[in-house]
Amino acid sequence: MGSIPQEAPASVKQGEGHDARAPVKNVKVVQAADLPPGHILAKINWTGLCASDKSLLHDDWVGFGFKMMDATNGIAGHEGAGTVAAVHPDVADIWKVGDRVGVKWVVSVCRNCEFCTNGHDELHCAQQKNSGFSVPGTFQQYCVTDGRYATRIPEGVTDEEAGPIMCGGVTAYTACKRSAVKPGQWMVVIGAGGGLGHFGVQYAVAMGMRVIAVDGGDEKRKLCLDQLKAEKYVDFTQVKDIPAHIKEITTYGAHGSIVFAASKEGYALGPQVLRPGGTMVAVGLPQDTSVMAGVPPLQLALNKLNIVGSVTGTLKDVEEALEFTARGLVHPILTKGTLHDVDKFCELMIAGKLPGRAVMKIE
Amino acid sequence: MGSIPQEAPASVKQGEGHDARAPVKNVKVVQAADLPPGHILAKINWTGLCASDKSLLHDDWVGFGFKMMDATNGIAGHEGAGTVAAVHPDVADIWKVGDRVGVKWVVSVCRNCEFCTNGHDELHCAQQKNSGFSVPGTFQQYCVTDGRYATRIPEGVTDEEAGPIMCGGVTAYTACKRSAVKPGQWMVVIGAGGGLGHFGVQYAVAMGMRVIAVDGGDEKRKLCLDQLKAEKYVDFTQVKDIPAHIKEITTYGAHGSIVFAASKEGYALGPQVLRPGGTMVAVGLPQDTSVMAGVPPLQLALNKLNIVGSVTGTLKDVEEALEFTARGLVHPILTKGTLHDVDKFCELMIAGKLPGRAVMKIE
Amino acid sequence: MGSIPQEAPASVKQGEGHDARAPVKNVKVVQAADLPPGHILAKINWTGLCASDKSLLHDDWVGFGFKMMDATNGIAGHEGAGTVAAVHPDVADIWKVGDRVGVKWVVSVCRNCEFCTNGHDELHCAQQKNSGFSVPGTFQQYCVTDGRYATRIPEGVTDEEAGPIMCGGVTAYTACKRSAVKPGQWMVVIGAGGGLGHFGVQYAVAMGMRVIAVDGGDEKRKLCLDQLKAEKYVDFTQVKDIPAHIKEITTYGAHGSIVFAASKEGYALGPQVLRPGGTMVAVGLPQDTSVMAGVPPLQLALNKLNIVGSVTGTLKDVEEALEFTARGLVHPILTKGTLHDVDKFCELMIAGKLPGRAVMKIE
Amino acid sequence: MGSIPQEAPASVKQGEGHDARAPVKNVKVVQAADLPPGHILAKINWTGLCASDKSLLHDDWVGFGFKMMDATNGIAGHEGAGTVAAVHPDVADIWKVGDRVGVKWVVSVCRNCEFCTNGHDELHCAQQKNSGFSVPGTFQQYCVTDGRYATRIPEGVTDEEAGPIMCGGVTAYTACKRSAVKPGQWMVVIGAGGGLGHFGVQYAVAMGMRVIAVDGGDEKRKLCLDQLKAEKYVDFTQVKDIPAHIKEITTYGAHGSIVFAASKEGYALGPQVLRPGGTMVAVGLPQDTSVMAGVPPLQLALNKLNIVGSVTGTLKDVEEALEFTARGLVHPILTKGTLHDVDKFCELMIAGKLPGRAVMKIE
Repeated sequence: MGSIPQEAPASVKQGEGHDARAPVKNVKVVQAADLPPGHILAKINWTGLCASDKSLLHDDWVGFGFKMMDATNGIAGHEGAGTVAAVHPDVADIWKVGDRVGVKWVVSVCRNCEFCTNGHDELHCAQQKNSGFSVPGTFQQYCVTDGRYATRIPEGVTDEEAGPIMCGGVTAYTACKRSAVKPGQWMVVIGAGGGLGHFGVQYAVAMGMRVIAVDGGDEKRKLCLDQLKAEKYVDFTQVKDIPAHIKEITTYGAHGSIVFAASKEGYALGPQVLRPGGTMVAVGLPQDTSVMAGVPPLQLALNKLNIVGSVTGTLKDVEEALEFTARGLVHPILTKGTLHDVDKFCELMIAGKLPGRAVMKIE
Repeated sequence: MGSIPQEAPASVKQGEGHDARAPVKNVKVVQAADLPPGHILAKINWTGLCASDKSLLHDDWVGFGFKMMDATNGIAGHEGAGTVAAVHPDVADIWKVGDRVGVKWVVSVCRNCEFCTNGHDELHCAQQKNSGFSVPGTFQQYCVTDGRYATRIPEGVTDEEAGPIMCGGVTAYTACKRSAVKPGQWMVVIGAGGGLGHFGVQYAVAMGMRVIAVDGGDEKRKLCLDQLKAEKYVDFTQVKDIPAHIKEITTYGAHGSIVFAASKEGYALGPQVLRPGGTMVAVGLPQDTSVMAGVPPLQLALNKLNIVGSVTGTLKDVEEALEFTARGLVHPILTKGTLHDVDKFCELMIAGKLPGRAVMKIE
Repeated sequence: MGSIPQEAPASVKQGEGHDARAPVKNVKVVQAADLPPGHILAKINWTGLCASDKSLLHDDWVGFGFKMMDATNGIAGHEGAGTVAAVHPDVADIWKVGDRVGVKWVVSVCRNCEFCTNGHDELHCAQQKNSGFSVPGTFQQYCVTDGRYATRIPEGVTDEEAGPIMCGGVTAYTACKRSAVKPGQWMVVIGAGGGLGHFGVQYAVAMGMRVIAVDGGDEKRKLCLDQLKAEKYVDFTQVKDIPAHIKEITTYGAHGSIVFAASKEGYALGPQVLRPGGTMVAVGLPQDTSVMAGVPPLQLALNKLNIVGSVTGTLKDVEEALEFTARGLVHPILTKGTLHDVDKFCELMIAGKLPGRAVMKIE
Repeated sequence: MGSIPQEAPASVKQGEGHDARAPVKNVKVVQAADLPPGHILAKINWTGLCASDKSLLHDDWVGFGFKMMDATNGIAGHEGAGTVAAVHPDVADIWKVGDRVGVKWVVSVCRNCEFCTNGHDELHCAQQKNSGFSVPGTFQQYCVTDGRYATRIPEGVTDEEAGPIMCGGVTAYTACKRSAVKPGQWMVVIGAGGGLGHFGVQYAVAMGMRVIAVDGGDEKRKLCLDQLKAEKYVDFTQVKDIPAHIKEITTYGAHGSIVFAASKEGYALGPQVLRPGGTMVAVGLPQDTSVMAGVPPLQLALNKLNIVGSVTGTLKDVEEALEFTARGLVHPILTKGTLHDVDKFCELMIAGKLPGRAVMKIE
């Protein structure tokens, strides 16, 4: 069976989807030597559905110049988990058939430029390849990927959990690190009950931060407090003056905030909950190009604020993010389905009604 | 003689100015024991004129809620340098009459709150007092100031140089530190030839950074390259696409930028010259409340940028900033006058025609 | 009744003890105005007994030039918790009678030198005063202490818990911070079941570290794993090659180690359990002057190790350390008694048989 | 002609030297495709002679288990500079024939382990290969090396300068970074006039530090002050109490020290010149296994010292180190010769009489 289900979702271009399927049909005859140098063939077992898959499939970010490239054959997806089916000899010292493997947003980097060698910015390599954006993604049965940048899935993490950690989980984890909030300090998670946010709360708690979860409604309250173990919940549908309320809890404001919500309101709130010296991390990517992550210079300077951006995580970040799950500290909330559910899940996501993170079994 | 010259500048409210003069008339009979606990009496010799003095005297920042308080008696100024004329017994272990002393924007902090004790945020103490804003400033002959937060002026720094370092110099120096740009990395100084910027270029160079100075015109070019020792000069009146030009020089963009220019254009440019992972420091404070220090979340996240604010410097920062001058590495360019010149200097400042930093002899 | 019980412990010099008692007898007539400027009178309720009290009382560190000074009148103790009994007007904005207060090893600093102003080294102020070393300590009913450096005890922390946190707790907490070990990384605590170590394990766990506790015997195993929540326990009486064993657990060695044990063996082990890039923190202070914290240069350089020292904590550190207890995350194990038990507790300590931390009720 | 001159230096084992020569004879017929994957052939033009070459050739470090491996065929050297003579297709996107290239101590890393992926510890990869230790070094005409870890030599740096920067220069530069000493702070360079030290002084100065050079004699004084631009010189043959003398200069002691001297005296002095909070970097590697980098725990803890190790530099560090030379800020002092001079240079080195850094032209 092909990589894209017979009833391909409307958002996937049919023709390209068809092309994409073709090579996969022959996958059993793929020889290791046929793989590009350093590459492996991953049999995808589960794949997450990221909000950016939705945005790319729906051309949400065309305003910023982002459009899924033809080379993907319309195959989105960058949260894949499965097993290694074939290994190019170049990377036979790293991978063997049967190893558990994860595929991420960044599938390869040049390993040679300023950003690949400076030790902390490989995600900004100009020659990077992106799963489901510049190369075919994980919404298929078999995926050819660079073995030098693929992720080993550790014992104790299932494929359906590993998938969403490949992007959603590690994005939340990296944002927590980027905030520089220390154990015992206050962190405000904006959009705490969402696909990214529910990861963020858990990682922040596991990292010793005191978490104030901001979201709307009683269901989210229950989720954030009882399940995700936030210390406080602020219901934006109820609390009039959120910054004032957070100042009451924290005396001076929080040490950090992460805006997971891809909304104007999220970005308006993010800096206002901070104490002097605090850091807001921008993660959510609004479609509206007029939304700014920032404040007037006077506020920024007088309060010594930091407004910083964070995007997904490095190979090492993912390894660390998975380890928290292997230790039982962080678990994604999963809405499970198959590739047939892509459109349905996208709609739920747009409506803000998708609980946790969608993950699809590849059959 | 009073602290404010007979011909008080038009910008100083006469009535308050008069009140202010009264106690100063009696200054010669001030006894150490009459000083508030921990305070000293500083005989001001020279005082700098900061752009924020201009803004406060002209009510520029009323839109942000900042207005010179009545307690100042209309006496602005926070870049004072002179000698100690009297010492309260509490601080007799620190100061003695005749010591050289500097008065800064922050003249006292509570030393007890979160920000005074966390080791790096004393400038954000909510109980701080500010020279020329909440207490009478340095535009007078004698100034009562908190001995526990006053600055010792080291050998090798004259009073007329020390004055402007109290705020302008240390603000530039602290912004350089805040940028986290390391020796050998690229720093773009926006507004490089101005009162703050010309300090910024020198400190950045002394700290081992490679400086690209951005300003307008050939006079500034000469200043920045020949006198301040910037490595490159970018003339905004000539170069069409400054970010592209800076990318040419630096391959990937600069590691840091500081916006000293209090303008919309400065803040639009600041983030655009950065490489991924770079940091923009906001220092200049535009009157226009609609100017934002920031970028769309997508740009911030995808490029892992940092947009941070910096305001003046701590007691320790000032000590360090002065040391660079004592070692002969940083020298303010001075436009000298007396208190009679306040209005003239403010006008030149507004017109962008004041070379370097205005400093006024107190007679 | 005096501050030292009638049956003064043999280790306290009688004459001096007597002198010490004298002023305390008159304590009820102490007026706020009689206190030195900025000082408060603390009625001590409970005081911890630190290993360094034992060392000072027993002249253990004379080889390093440390000897309890005459000014203490032989009154040791620097882990006091109680209430404010009188307040000098200088600090009436900070303290009022009845406030809960803690007294630490460092009771005052000059607030003016390099180390007091650089934001992170106030504990190295050359003019500091030390409780039970240069000024009378907390082994008495009433203690005059500097209100500007005394610690406010928060709700949710009892006096008997607060006492030992003043030095033992904060020392362990600061050492954890100093290790730079991050959430999810491995920390080896050497001497994990002792008075300092049992704090160290708890703080490290609360900070998100993965803790390997090293100590001897099954009782300590139970303590470390079940009560303190270490992830692993290494019994030095059983395991032959501890570094090899820890490498097995951690693959490459631990990211950090803290030597709480004041022994040659502890310092020999500390660096050997580290992975390249790891950090050993020296806390325990052996009496034997020949014990070195260090390794041959070749090992240090080839493995990029860090050997660093840590001593007690700042005013802010103590505030943070207490907060962990207020939140219910860290609890000292207490061996309770009264001042009559000083000698007995010292003997148990020397024999390594004092469970947790000794704390004495002041009656 | 062979890679080792006919008159091979006595310190090179003849038999192995002969074997080594064999393949090199055929170098002109080496085809790119014959190179191991990812490798290039570098025609060495100049090679530095590092103290560790001397130590390896003389079996100095056998006590630590370090011995030049058979695979080197006795060919030492890890400071090579020349041009690319052949390129394996794998790295044809990075290198082309004629490019200028440098060969370092670490010639390849696995790029896959904890240390290769954590962003700052690639030099601690367990699978690294070392030039002149585990693979044939740069004391030959042609050297096969891993193109993925070879260094591009920038314009403005000659081959004879680039060679010694490959190890000596970058080692000094990295040690300066590792010290965490900031612009304007004091750095003590121990062994300032030596092969490493004379680099260290220059890098520290270029990084804005205030350098106190420690070495012996008037010639070194002249070198350190006039040529290398240290701020102060301390002659250990004249000054009795060096720590006291340095405290006089710096008030509290220096912020950092680097021990480049591979001697007991150097390591005894290193920590004693520091102020509280200061950092000593261990670089020099004494033959004597009893020399310790360290101090008693009490001194380490009470002064919050940091004793850290540093070894050579990463690919990125070397790039940065070269850039300082390209900008004209750092220049090695060279003692020039050919491979025939190896023994002579080793002897001078042992006698401490080799000025600067030995560099040998490959003919």
